[in-house]
Amino acid sequence: MESITTSTYAVHFNQRAYDAINEHLAGTAYSKIFIVVDENTKRDCLEDFRKRIQGDFDFGILEIESGEDHKTIATCTRLWQALSDGDADRKCLLINLGGGVITDLGGFVASTFKRGIAFINVPTTLLAMVDASVGGKTGVDLGPLKNQVGVINQPVMVLIMSDFLKTLDKRQLQSGFAEMLKHGLIRSAVYWETLKTNGDFSNMDHLIYDSVTIKNEVVLQDPTEQHLRKILNFGHTLGHAVESYFLESKSRKTLLHGEAIAVGMILEAYLSHELTGLPESELEDIRSTFLERYPKTEFSDADIKAILSLLKFDKKNSHGNINFVLLEKIGVPVIDVKIPHELFGRAFAYYTES
Amino acid sequence: MESITTSTYAVHFNQRAYDAINEHLAGTAYSKIFIVVDENTKRDCLEDFRKRIQGDFDFGILEIESGEDHKTIATCTRLWQALSDGDADRKCLLINLGGGVITDLGGFVASTFKRGIAFINVPTTLLAMVDASVGGKTGVDLGPLKNQVGVINQPVMVLIMSDFLKTLDKRQLQSGFAEMLKHGLIRSAVYWETLKTNGDFSNMDHLIYDSVTIKNEVVLQDPTEQHLRKILNFGHTLGHAVESYFLESKSRKTLLHGEAIAVGMILEAYLSHELTGLPESELEDIRSTFLERYPKTEFSDADIKAILSLLKFDKKNSHGNINFVLLEKIGVPVIDVKIPHELFGRAFAYYTES
Repeated sequence: MESITTSTYAVHFNQRAYDAINEHLAGTAYSKIFIVVDENTKRDCLEDFRKRIQGDFDFGILEIESGEDHKTIATCTRLWQALSDGDADRKCLLINLGGGVITDLGGFVASTFKRGIAFINVPTTLLAMVDASVGGKTGVDLGPLKNQVGVINQPVMVLIMSDFLKTLDKRQLQSGFAEMLKHGLIRSAVYWETLKTNGDFSNMDHLIYDSVTIKNEVVLQDPTEQHLRKILNFGHTLGHAVESYFLESKSRKTLLHGEAIAVGMILEAYLSHELTGLPESELEDIRSTFLERYPKTEFSDADIKAILSLLKFDKKNSHGNINFVLLEKIGVPVIDVKIPHELFGRAFAYYTES
Repeated sequence: MESITTSTYAVHFNQRAYDAINEHLAGTAYSKIFIVVDENTKRDCLEDFRKRIQGDFDFGILEIESGEDHKTIATCTRLWQALSDGDADRKCLLINLGGGVITDLGGFVASTFKRGIAFINVPTTLLAMVDASVGGKTGVDLGPLKNQVGVINQPVMVLIMSDFLKTLDKRQLQSGFAEMLKHGLIRSAVYWETLKTNGDFSNMDHLIYDSVTIKNEVVLQDPTEQHLRKILNFGHTLGHAVESYFLESKSRKTLLHGEAIAVGMILEAYLSHELTGLPESELEDIRSTFLERYPKTEFSDADIKAILSLLKFDKKNSHGNINFVLLEKIGVPVIDVKIPHELFGRAFAYYTES
């Protein structure tokens, strides 16, 4: 499979990915190589990965706990300290082997340790493969607020080995699939239709490739999120607020990222129908597609109020206004739409009553 | 006084500095402006600064505790949280009003909050004016290890108001003066001689201007510290280790940065005499100049051993080697010199016995 070239680095796939990292390591004099894992990727992916790296490297293994609630400054501090304790200097390399928590957090740790060391991302979840692999966003959460602290910085390369998908359960695969469905909604009705027919996550290689290509095209045209790149936030403005609320709530089960933005996409599709002309048939298509794949979430009035109060922390905010990405039709987004406040309640009602 | 132009921004002085920020604020639609202070700059500088800012701004004041032992990730977390609580969005501005702790830490907080907001540095100490004003280094300490976490990122502008020097005691002025003396040692024997005759910190404007100009010339030629910029580290390799050791030690008084690098410069001048031909007369000149201005520090054998063990954490390290900047003569530096280990003991003996 061809590699995909971003502004500064390449995304390599499968065998080509192992060839690329082996060539790179043979040609670069890193002083030491550290691999960040969590308990899952340590158990399921690390040995496989190491076996295919040529050369006699004494990897430093840095293990963090899995899950969004460990995507914190406290975890970063443990890693910075571990790098320091492991005599890491500016010429060392950090390989982030894991899902989005590890690639986002590990990328931030590398970008800030001694004012920046090199890093390579090896996403092991479907979500991280199709979402975190392109764009250079690194960061961690601040309490319940997602990605409040971070930098934009690019890895040396990204390696996508679809074999790692075998280590995931169906819920995790669905979570990543939500971002792929989003790529269809914002960019290609054809891709949306193709994805809808894939119910069993077979033959994923080309679907992943198309998702990375779509995201890369968007980011290349607008790396700093001034205009076009905002379309990647479809479903995320309300989706992030839902995700934050469930992450913070003691009594509610935490939603996976894809599950939260699936809710967000239904809500924002409703807003699109009300405000930007999304046809009712397409709204219904979006709703039924997501509800077939993702569990229905219950929202009380108090839940909705708390979720809406979290919107002000969205990074897309400016001067107190919250700008939404909506759809004119499937594949055709509109950016910078302001929402009359009363519509939010109706959007949740549409979701809840369906 | 003319402004000094760096790669991406200008350093403005005195009245021109107030004109520059007033013009900038009048022409830029920041959503909100926050000012970071400590208890000293809040008391001594804030009112003066605000009075000379035109326009009706509702500044958010963020106060941190003064001192190097608060230059931590914990303080950053408090500021990130305070920005979040203050509804800061990506279009807000952070003004760092204080010494090097505030400009380094505030610059890092701004560079990482929501993946980067704008910041302006207003250094209020002599040290921060001549050292932190140019170069884009931001960061915080990790335990006793200085500046282990940070990024390179440039402010919108830097404002140097020498009136703020009146708020400093003599010990703080001497601390900043050490960096100015260093600029003479690494770049200009004439500037070194001029500085030596200034015993009372009068007429500092032109001396500060010359220091900023020297540092800027060096950074412009080598922004990423591949070669020439390393000369700015003269006195700092051992000086940082001395500073870290005293910062961590419960029983020893903390040294100011300039006091620590004054020790470092005598030690590294001795190494220069041994290894790179610094004439004995110039070594004696350096030693006597620093010992006249800075208190003599006592070092036991245990102190020296602990200080040398800290060298491995120096950011200038690579592959386990520690590279020193030494002098051929005053004004003429040599980079990337490796030191035979037995010389360190003799350098400390030279310092102690003098």
